[in-house]
Amino acid sequence: MATAASEHGTLIDGLTERLGAAAVLTGADDLEPALTETRGLYRGRALALVRPGDREEVAFVVRECARAGVPIVPQGGNTGLVGGGVPDGGIVLSLARLDRIRHLDPVNATITVEAGCILRAVQEAAEAAGHLFPLSLASEGSCRIGGNLATNAGGTAVLRYGNMRELTLGLEVVLADGRVWNGLKGLRKDNTGYDLKDLFIGSEGTLGIITAAVLKLFPKPRVRVTAFVGCASPGRALALFERLREAAGDQLTAFEYIPDFGLEIVLRHRPGAVRPLAGRHPSYALVELSSPQADADLRGRLETVLGQALEDGLIADAALGASEAQSLALWGLRESLSEVQRFEGGSIKHDVAVPVSRVAEFIETAAKACEAEMPGIRVCAFGHFGDGNIHFNLSQPVGMDRDAFLAEWARFNRIVHDIVHAMDGSIAAEHGVGLIKREELLRYKDPVALDLMRALKRTLDPRNLLNPGKVIDIGGPAPSAIAGLMEHP
Amino acid sequence: MATAASEHGTLIDGLTERLGAAAVLTGADDLEPALTETRGLYRGRALALVRPGDREEVAFVVRECARAGVPIVPQGGNTGLVGGGVPDGGIVLSLARLDRIRHLDPVNATITVEAGCILRAVQEAAEAAGHLFPLSLASEGSCRIGGNLATNAGGTAVLRYGNMRELTLGLEVVLADGRVWNGLKGLRKDNTGYDLKDLFIGSEGTLGIITAAVLKLFPKPRVRVTAFVGCASPGRALALFERLREAAGDQLTAFEYIPDFGLEIVLRHRPGAVRPLAGRHPSYALVELSSPQADADLRGRLETVLGQALEDGLIADAALGASEAQSLALWGLRESLSEVQRFEGGSIKHDVAVPVSRVAEFIETAAKACEAEMPGIRVCAFGHFGDGNIHFNLSQPVGMDRDAFLAEWARFNRIVHDIVHAMDGSIAAEHGVGLIKREELLRYKDPVALDLMRALKRTLDPRNLLNPGKVIDIGGPAPSAIAGLMEHP
Repeated sequence: MATAASEHGTLIDGLTERLGAAAVLTGADDLEPALTETRGLYRGRALALVRPGDREEVAFVVRECARAGVPIVPQGGNTGLVGGGVPDGGIVLSLARLDRIRHLDPVNATITVEAGCILRAVQEAAEAAGHLFPLSLASEGSCRIGGNLATNAGGTAVLRYGNMRELTLGLEVVLADGRVWNGLKGLRKDNTGYDLKDLFIGSEGTLGIITAAVLKLFPKPRVRVTAFVGCASPGRALALFERLREAAGDQLTAFEYIPDFGLEIVLRHRPGAVRPLAGRHPSYALVELSSPQADADLRGRLETVLGQALEDGLIADAALGASEAQSLALWGLRESLSEVQRFEGGSIKHDVAVPVSRVAEFIETAAKACEAEMPGIRVCAFGHFGDGNIHFNLSQPVGMDRDAFLAEWARFNRIVHDIVHAMDGSIAAEHGVGLIKREELLRYKDPVALDLMRALKRTLDPRNLLNPGKVIDIGGPAPSAIAGLMEHP
Repeated sequence: MATAASEHGTLIDGLTERLGAAAVLTGADDLEPALTETRGLYRGRALALVRPGDREEVAFVVRECARAGVPIVPQGGNTGLVGGGVPDGGIVLSLARLDRIRHLDPVNATITVEAGCILRAVQEAAEAAGHLFPLSLASEGSCRIGGNLATNAGGTAVLRYGNMRELTLGLEVVLADGRVWNGLKGLRKDNTGYDLKDLFIGSEGTLGIITAAVLKLFPKPRVRVTAFVGCASPGRALALFERLREAAGDQLTAFEYIPDFGLEIVLRHRPGAVRPLAGRHPSYALVELSSPQADADLRGRLETVLGQALEDGLIADAALGASEAQSLALWGLRESLSEVQRFEGGSIKHDVAVPVSRVAEFIETAAKACEAEMPGIRVCAFGHFGDGNIHFNLSQPVGMDRDAFLAEWARFNRIVHDIVHAMDGSIAAEHGVGLIKREELLRYKDPVALDLMRALKRTLDPRNLLNPGKVIDIGGPAPSAIAGLMEHP
């Protein structure tokens, strides 16, 4: 019998022969970027980084790996935050070369793109044709559509336009056996059997490899107004959200939450950041109204609602962006929140959602519980308040040892996730499960749902070769190489 | 060994003992309404009509049937149009008694309802709380939410609000083995693993029995304006649709198409119907703009677009509903189109969708092909033009024998579906597959998709007891009793 090493050699030789040497990389330097992920929480290992150039080559790679019994970890921009793209042996299959925009149909309001397209390139192609592709994330300059689909990406435009799932009409997927499912339809209505596309969207590469998609386009906003609001509590922010939704309906395109601590660290660490309101307030909301109708009086509408809220004592202060530059500056405060936290030492992070009606209660309850558990801990709960999705991050007490703080990761997970669970919430709202929440999922997810997930995984990937060990484990070799290299949790 | 009859007797006895005699009906008169369907195309047979009162009783019935190997056909309002609810032996499980509205959360904008709720009751509950539940169908006074979910119902509000799938956040489902999956979450973001709910939505009762759902609510429209437009062709109607979408965005809440023949038969057969425009035109559009903002000048916006379209020669005539009563009358013309066709003799029906960009081309191409095939045939292509969804119905030539015309059902299916398929369309846009399109699906659906569907069916219902033979056949006893009683396919 051939050894595993020589079998792997045969696989690599076969892939190189078909794809060319430039598309099958095995050198340590070439592999390096594919082994690590954004936050440095995991480090994996891989036989090769394989970069097919089209769908047929993807199918070929999958078939050859299936034949050799070698696992595949698909990667797009490798910008994920949950370890979903970390390999543990096997090959990394990069979709980056499948980066064509295949078709834009202005009347059907759809764009057909390949999985390797960078999100910003899709936004720009839509914009150039007078449309909007609304998905918007911090990593939009480097994340790729395939990853957005595999993780059902969220971001700041979900309130108005939905998650990636809601933005997708059709998919093309390479299955675990190398067959291609062509579901690239651009239809608003299609009840010809089971909904296959939504099975692959959000499955983090564990059920199939998405190679292309038909996405929805929207009328491009022609007017936009942004406001920064200060108020006394998350509860006041929620009351303001309700008033704005009532008054502005679909024109309310963003309602983001920033706590006092969050704004302060942005002002402290972000060069050029300017305090948007004269005083400090416990809670802030970044509000955006927009409309494709050039004559919509958004400023008037927003001023009316905010004026009344001030008069009623619901909010304490508000500033409207007087120009596009001012609006961008207000958004800049919000968008730099994630990155400035590292200047304050260790940070324990949670990406959770609760019903919108409970989002204020969640922030207050979870903050109190964490502060009671560790006096001096600094709660940085921010994010997509209007979706009920909070990035509930915890910065270490000033002066505490960073590693000692991060060693408490699991303890704070338990506290925060227990509260989320009791509120019928989600412990993985928009970043996915990957490796980092796999064990938490076993604890909190309905056991019948877990059984269904295992059954689906076994059906679609019976040999457990597609991103094995991610999301839901169905047995097989433990991802030891990864586990051994995890920093935390 | 016990005979099948005595085994069935034991099952019925067991169900009666647990649910009570009033909930387990076996008399011919009681069964009758459950055996036939709306259009009289099929007639089935059943051991019993079982009416559980809650989720636990549903689970009990499913477990007992699984134990006895007896198939289950779930029924809601039994208003389906594709034979999806027709039993072939086994029991009919009616969800009608699960008709509680469990919860309405105004801030989260969700309503949690049981599967047996009549759609209108859900609309009314939302309305009473100041919200809108937008799903709207001709059968809304008798269809039930479980059926709407099982068929991923569409209707006239899809253009703005989406299908039933897009309106659903969470589900509760009894699985084939009688276990209950509790997925009743009301979250806008939840990436904790595979998307289970969308697997059950649209599966027509073949993968599980939906017992409850969390549905989205929307701000109630406060202003509404309706117009009836006449123009020279479907192509002109499409150009008008584009202009309205551009000018009105989300305020465009309906764009329905009616051909000259359709309006004429409504005027001929509907008591009190009034011709909405002075002259006759080849194509008509029923347009609705609405907004939750009471101060939105919808009438002004619509008048501007229609005025310009008249000036440009794009449309020939238009009338705005001057009052709510007039608007309702215009909608009445559209809504009676389905029912008046029967006064014109036999009708061969198709429920299809194409990309919106090709909907005019589809109507013209398919009409020409059918008229060439049978001179005198009268094409009644109408419906949800803005979704690309056309009810492409064919009325028999005047004076032709009805049965002779209906005998051509399969021939015209082939002509119309071939054209739809060539346009990357769907042969089952909103009514589903059921029995009537099961064989057509095998012809037109991607074979890899069909394999995936079979694999999912085998995984979730390995004994093929949930609505067997519907949507996709995975073997087992042929539905002979139904097939033997079909009038025309």
